[in-house]
Amino acid sequence: MTATGGKGDVGFEAAWDTGDDAAGEGARAAPGAGYPDLPTTAYLVLGVLIVTDESLTAGEIKVRSQHTVGHFYWAPAVSHIRRELARLIEHGMAAERTIHVGRRKMTVYESTARGERALRAWAEALPGDEPVMTKHPLMLKIWLAGDTEPARVLEAIDRYLDTVQKSIDELQWAQSRGRELGLLDDPRSRYPQAVTMYTLRSLYAEMANIRQLRDDIDWNMGDAYQKYADHPKTSVRRRVRPEPGTEPAEDG
Amino acid sequence: MTATGGKGDVGFEAAWDTGDDAAGEGARAAPGAGYPDLPTTAYLVLGVLIVTDESLTAGEIKVRSQHTVGHFYWAPAVSHIRRELARLIEHGMAAERTIHVGRRKMTVYESTARGERALRAWAEALPGDEPVMTKHPLMLKIWLAGDTEPARVLEAIDRYLDTVQKSIDELQWAQSRGRELGLLDDPRSRYPQAVTMYTLRSLYAEMANIRQLRDDIDWNMGDAYQKYADHPKTSVRRRVRPEPGTEPAEDG
Repeated sequence: MTATGGKGDVGFEAAWDTGDDAAGEGARAAPGAGYPDLPTTAYLVLGVLIVTDESLTAGEIKVRSQHTVGHFYWAPAVSHIRRELARLIEHGMAAERTIHVGRRKMTVYESTARGERALRAWAEALPGDEPVMTKHPLMLKIWLAGDTEPARVLEAIDRYLDTVQKSIDELQWAQSRGRELGLLDDPRSRYPQAVTMYTLRSLYAEMANIRQLRDDIDWNMGDAYQKYADHPKTSVRRRVRPEPGTEPAEDG
Repeated sequence: MTATGGKGDVGFEAAWDTGDDAAGEGARAAPGAGYPDLPTTAYLVLGVLIVTDESLTAGEIKVRSQHTVGHFYWAPAVSHIRRELARLIEHGMAAERTIHVGRRKMTVYESTARGERALRAWAEALPGDEPVMTKHPLMLKIWLAGDTEPARVLEAIDRYLDTVQKSIDELQWAQSRGRELGLLDDPRSRYPQAVTMYTLRSLYAEMANIRQLRDDIDWNMGDAYQKYADHPKTSVRRRVRPEPGTEPAEDG
């Protein structure tokens, strides 16, 4: 964040905050359920430990988050993950242990049975029917493009298409890796796997959708039409219809 | 925000903040361009005034935002819109005037020429190739569903499908209204119109995608398969292939 940009953004953050709260309140286990009132990110970190069913370092949690929940919700930074892990441990919802890999010592984290119960209660309380919150910077740019040259807009679209392709590649890589490790057949991975397949279809649909947007802009506002100046143009002969009431009566 | 939920969410907000900043820094006009360093929401409000080309009350700006930028970026609350309008007026980027509708006095807002130049500079500086930020509460719920009964997950999916349909209906309504008012043919509406068409296709694609997810969950985890218990099941006769090396040599 730039020093000058700070104050101005407060309102904007506050609004996301509001949206987040709306989701968050429903998301929290009912008071008295015996579980602490933790932020969404704590449950995301716990969810990664539980869904992957692994002992993970904080850095590994970050990578796993990017390949999973990052595609449809949010992948926290490592520093943020460490903060939430401390909180989860404090509440007995996760445990840490030190392992030795060669000469290196590493701290790995695992969920506890209490953590698994807490996550279940939290996830079940999620209504899940709230609208999706989307911030699509490219659409904002195009929506506000005014009299910008189409060529400049098309450039931005092409760069964005590259980022979509990169997301598809990463997800396909993660799927291949999961197949290689035999993780996809685990009955416990059915729900996460259904979500991954949804995410992948979304990315391909976005690719197709953006490609049409690109062509629409090129043909409607750019010079793609002019490029076909020597394309044979037949004349259009609209059919002449008789005036109402003057048609011959139909037989039978 | 609940009093108890406050502290815990700080980190999560801060992360969205970071994402926002990443977009925001690129988004801001270069220093020295002569325009003030305003938050994204100020430019969204200004963009609504410019794209609609209307004199609007704060309440009308909110409704227009919901039907436009709200679908792909963010629709601020009226109180927030008022705050940004005050800022825009202070910087000479918007103007207010009082109109009389019957006996009622209303304050309406319009963009100024300076505001239009500032918005153009701001929008052109947007890179537009940043990844989309998506928070999809339903996917989070399903991803974390663990051993939840499929029937409960399907219920949440059905409620969400209703919200997608509602968004489609609203956008179709707004399109019909624009057609009725002859706004769609205005050459200045070409970029915004291309974005609206993209948004509409996105919503229909989401509908189709979620329906497949629903069926995948029902058939893979639910009792849809059992419902077809009396469906004739032919036996599967896998073809027997000769052992490698025992096939007769191919002719010619």
